[in-house]
Amino acid sequence: MTEYSLFTSESVSEGHPDKIADQISDAILDAILAEDPRARVACETMVKTGVAIISGEITTSAWVDLESIVRGVINDIGYTSSDVGFDGATCSVINIIGKQSPEINQGVDRDTLENQGAGDQGLMFGYASDETDVLMPAPITYAHRLVERQARVRRDGTLPWLRPDAKSQVTLRYGGDGRPEAIDAVVLSTQHNPEIALADLREAVIEEIIKPVLPGEWLSADTKYFINPTGKFVIGGPVGDCGLTGRKIIVDSYGGMARHGGGAFSGKDPSKVDRSAAYAGRWVAKNIVAAGLARRCEIQVSYAIGEARPTSISLNTFGTETVDHDRIVAAVREVFDLRPFAIIRDLDLLHPIYRPTASYGHFGRDPYALAGATAFSWERTDRAEALRSALG
Amino acid sequence: MTEYSLFTSESVSEGHPDKIADQISDAILDAILAEDPRARVACETMVKTGVAIISGEITTSAWVDLESIVRGVINDIGYTSSDVGFDGATCSVINIIGKQSPEINQGVDRDTLENQGAGDQGLMFGYASDETDVLMPAPITYAHRLVERQARVRRDGTLPWLRPDAKSQVTLRYGGDGRPEAIDAVVLSTQHNPEIALADLREAVIEEIIKPVLPGEWLSADTKYFINPTGKFVIGGPVGDCGLTGRKIIVDSYGGMARHGGGAFSGKDPSKVDRSAAYAGRWVAKNIVAAGLARRCEIQVSYAIGEARPTSISLNTFGTETVDHDRIVAAVREVFDLRPFAIIRDLDLLHPIYRPTASYGHFGRDPYALAGATAFSWERTDRAEALRSALG
Ligand SMILES: C[S@@+](CC[C@H](N)C(=O)[O-])C[C@H]1O[C@@H](n2cnc3c(N)ncnc32)[C@H](O)[C@@H]1O
Ligand SMILES: C[S@@+](CC[C@H](N)C(=O)[O-])C[C@H]1O[C@@H](n2cnc3c(N)ncnc32)[C@H](O)[C@@H]1O
Repeated sequence: MTEYSLFTSESVSEGHPDKIADQISDAILDAILAEDPRARVACETMVKTGVAIISGEITTSAWVDLESIVRGVINDIGYTSSDVGFDGATCSVINIIGKQSPEINQGVDRDTLENQGAGDQGLMFGYASDETDVLMPAPITYAHRLVERQARVRRDGTLPWLRPDAKSQVTLRYGGDGRPEAIDAVVLSTQHNPEIALADLREAVIEEIIKPVLPGEWLSADTKYFINPTGKFVIGGPVGDCGLTGRKIIVDSYGGMARHGGGAFSGKDPSKVDRSAAYAGRWVAKNIVAAGLARRCEIQVSYAIGEARPTSISLNTFGTETVDHDRIVAAVREVFDLRPFAIIRDLDLLHPIYRPTASYGHFGRDPYALAGATAFSWERTDRAEALRSALG
Repeated sequence: MTEYSLFTSESVSEGHPDKIADQISDAILDAILAEDPRARVACETMVKTGVAIISGEITTSAWVDLESIVRGVINDIGYTSSDVGFDGATCSVINIIGKQSPEINQGVDRDTLENQGAGDQGLMFGYASDETDVLMPAPITYAHRLVERQARVRRDGTLPWLRPDAKSQVTLRYGGDGRPEAIDAVVLSTQHNPEIALADLREAVIEEIIKPVLPGEWLSADTKYFINPTGKFVIGGPVGDCGLTGRKIIVDSYGGMARHGGGAFSGKDPSKVDRSAAYAGRWVAKNIVAAGLARRCEIQVSYAIGEARPTSISLNTFGTETVDHDRIVAAVREVFDLRPFAIIRDLDLLHPIYRPTASYGHFGRDPYALAGATAFSWERTDRAEALRSALG
């Protein structure tokens, strides 16, 4: 559902340099949270040819082997030799991490746990729409699935000449009813071994990545394909492009369909509202749509540093609401407690759950579900009933 | 004009760590473009306690003294001694810049200049609304003016105890007609000398920064003020918070009121559509509103790497259009050429104009106008007439 007749979203694979940085930052966060749930972590990473630099502010009683974590993430992604451009075993790992400013900390740790102040000011949005079964916009959903599939066929040996770095982009055409009805254009660039010929690569990408992922009824003779349009993509990863944490915030969220407050997620413990309140925003919006109160919903929350209560909560239902807008706002205020303490408690965020969030999107999926383990709690529709009750 | 009854936007001062990084990246871009307009520049910066690391990909024939540029930017901002936490003269400057991948370059430099391919895939939005005289949303406009004012009264000696790092946030209340009518909350945190007492700081910030900037008729007894809510902000800049280029993309653009494609601006030469097409998007949207075709307009464009023509152009006028929506789209296609070559030509982007863009917003202002020099060309309403003509 959108006012646009065409809408484009993109995604990138786990081997994209910015995503390497995000995964390193979140792996460090996880390792620390596993030992010390009270830690304060803001970890930023830069990757460039032959080097990973970790920085930011961390205050913890845990001892973790940061160097091994960084090397492990890089190797796990598949950057294991200078042939592919980056090697977790031999790259340089530089640590310039500092501690959280005690002056910021005095704003966060208040008299009681309940009064825990927001770790920063800022604005965050949450979004959901009934456009897909995961209540996410369709363009970002399919853009993610393309690069996820790229990683799968690279790992399982289907297309052994694939390398880790890849990007996807999907342009969807929406009908008059606001429903997706066709795919206008698909862009897919993937890093590859030098041996594969461009024509063979293009055919394999269509057959093994695009066709298995995109709904056949949306593809037609009018669909434009741009597959490795530069013609060559052997050099990839940090050699081709410097990677930084927090530089894929639209890929991480709603692919541009929803508004964004600007705060990044990866590397931040949930005392940072940039992350926890954006997760809570998704949770609120998804429950509103799941409860049938609107077909499409965007929520904005904002905070002042050191303050527990949001400075604003505001809702946009794009005219799709089935109940009066102000009554939905009142129900949200009744059912959801958006103080940092309450978000962390209700979404159970003080666990090492973050590394899988750092690729293929923080919303609309649940990688833990497969493992039968803790879900991405913000994807639960466990408050839909309470919202309906609150509305009488 | 918004569907929200409350809307919050934030800004940060030129001394904020992410903005230090943006300004360094753009100062390097400017120095190179001044010598070599054909250079390819993607410059990323990380600042942390005592160090500035410059990275990314640059291909140029120019020789520039990068170290001096970095030190100059840091000093100009006001970080000139370890007392304030950072010192341009004595910090470490580390250069790990590489070259643009020749495989990317072969996608950008095509047979003719006209066919120049987009430097990357991606989606970009442009936005304008008649909410302010600069055709920008009001919340981000006032958030910027607060931190600009902070810098002014710091520099001109009005409040000599101010230090460079600061953040602002404005929550606006909109009336039923979609017009801003009151300010619900203002957050302002500013770094300061240890000598100033908190009560004095708060009073001075209200009198010398907030009152001169925010429209009096929007302030009332109901306006909430959060001034240095942590209570202390002596430690600031890169000691308190690691700074990275491209981490303030919502501050840089529309404060969250418009959608965002995710691409950052600073450090990128205009062959990168993340920057040039976002500027062009603002230009298109602003001309549409200036021509009276809509009171509010958002445009999305997208590109495939190596391709000159956008993969999609799409328009949202939020029901405020005065002419049929499809006819506006047709007029945009007639009046604006959105190939990278044409954008660079029409907006005259191959000049060292970028450093001033890197603080206080890329849109809705024109720092060069004061100097009587080249404007932010994307703020010109020079195609409004052509749009009207195209519509007959
Ligand atoms: C085009 S690069 C960004 C621009 C780069 N900083 C520069 O200096 O040109 C962005 C992403 O595109 C992908 N990429 C790298 N080399 C590519 C190639 N030869 N063809 C297509 N995509 C490529 C990688 O995922 C990379 O992270
Ligand atoms: C709160 S810090 C970000 C969090 C930080 N990475 C951490 O580890 O807690 C974000 C910004 O807030 C501002 N800031 C720093 N110290 C502050 C303080 N003591 N009070 C209020 N704002 C502060 C600076 O502009 C800084 O860049």
